[in-house]
Formats: sequence, C-alpha cells, structure tokens
Amino acid sequence: MPRPSRLVGADRTAALADLPAWSLAPDRDALQRAFRFADFRSAFGFMAQVALWAEKHDHHPEWSNVYNRVEVTLTTHDCDGISALDVALACYMDGLADGAA
Amino acid sequence: MPRPSRLVGADRTAALADLPAWSLAPDRDALQRAFRFADFRSAFGFMAQVALWAEKHDHHPEWSNVYNRVEVTLTTHDCDGISALDVALACYMDGLADGAA
Repeated sequence: MPRPSRLVGADRTAALADLPAWSLAPDRDALQRAFRFADFRSAFGFMAQVALWAEKHDHHPEWSNVYNRVEVTLTTHDCDGISALDVALACYMDGLADGAA
Repeated sequence: MPRPSRLVGADRTAALADLPAWSLAPDRDALQRAFRFADFRSAFGFMAQVALWAEKHDHHPEWSNVYNRVEVTLTTHDCDGISALDVALACYMDGLADGAA
C-alpha cells in the first residue's frame, strides 16, 4: 500500500467541502468532530464499528469518550497532516452517525 | 440500587492503597491511569471489555485512546467524587491489563 500523502490544493479543498460537520484543529493539520449519541451504548457501538474500520485500514482515530459523547481527531502521522485516509474515515463516521440519529 | 457515596476516611485510604497504579487527578476528585498495550487491537479489546462492565454496572469511564494507549479518568458524578464504583472499575481494569501484559 503506498504511503498516504498530505492533501493539498484543490483535492484538499474539495475533500473538506464534503465534510461540513468537521473543523480543522487549531494547533495541527487535523480534522475534528464531536459526536453526541442517545447514551453510552450507542456511543460505544459507534466506536466499535469505527474500530473495525480502523483496524482493517490500519488507520486509527485519536478519540475520547465521556458517556454519550465521542470527540474525534483525525490526522495521518506518516505525512504529518490530513490525508485521503482521514477523509475516508471521516466520511465513514458521518455515515454511521447519520444512521444512528 | 442505592446512590453511590463519596469514599472518605479509612475506607478511602484503604481503597486507594489497593490501586498503586492509579493517581489522583490534580483538579478534581478522580482516579487516573494510563494504559499501554501492544497495539490498537489490544487497546480497543480492553476498552470493549470495560464497556460491557460499564454498561452492566451503569458506571462509565471518561477515557481517550490514541493507537495503543488508553488514558482513563474515573469519578462518580452522583457524589461528585471517587466512590466504591470507581474503585471497583479501577480494579477490573487493572485485572484486564495485567492479563494482557
């Protein structure tokens, strides 16, 4: 698998436009989003599905969980910034969260 | 189930003595510990087992995960401090982590 490269230029602009619920981290090149679910079971169910995606793609989120809330930061260490893998994971999370809402 | 009460006095001293890997949070009455595993799969496997305990006991950790690391904060909102539930959850986590090591 080729090493992921940092998204730049028009590719980056287009990718971020498709992720309106995500914001850029203030202190690093990373995507951030906070998710809120009905309860812990729903929040951890979401995390479990994401964990399976992460393991399959060997690309893992940084995240925290407090009861029904999950806060996520996505970045790619190999390229020190946002790559297409982060965009793919963000889209996957959006899809799961929309399905849960 | 009775509301959990904040551990004080000798009960608290004895409970904390049994949790040498945990420290007190600097800014609130809470237990903290950082766990490190071989990889994400092991870290999330730990979290999944803890999640089942948490749901069964209706007592949930505050935690974050970055790849093979899991940082945990335990406190009981109902009593605004460390209760026997936190001690039980800390012991459970210690047992899981020891088993994984």
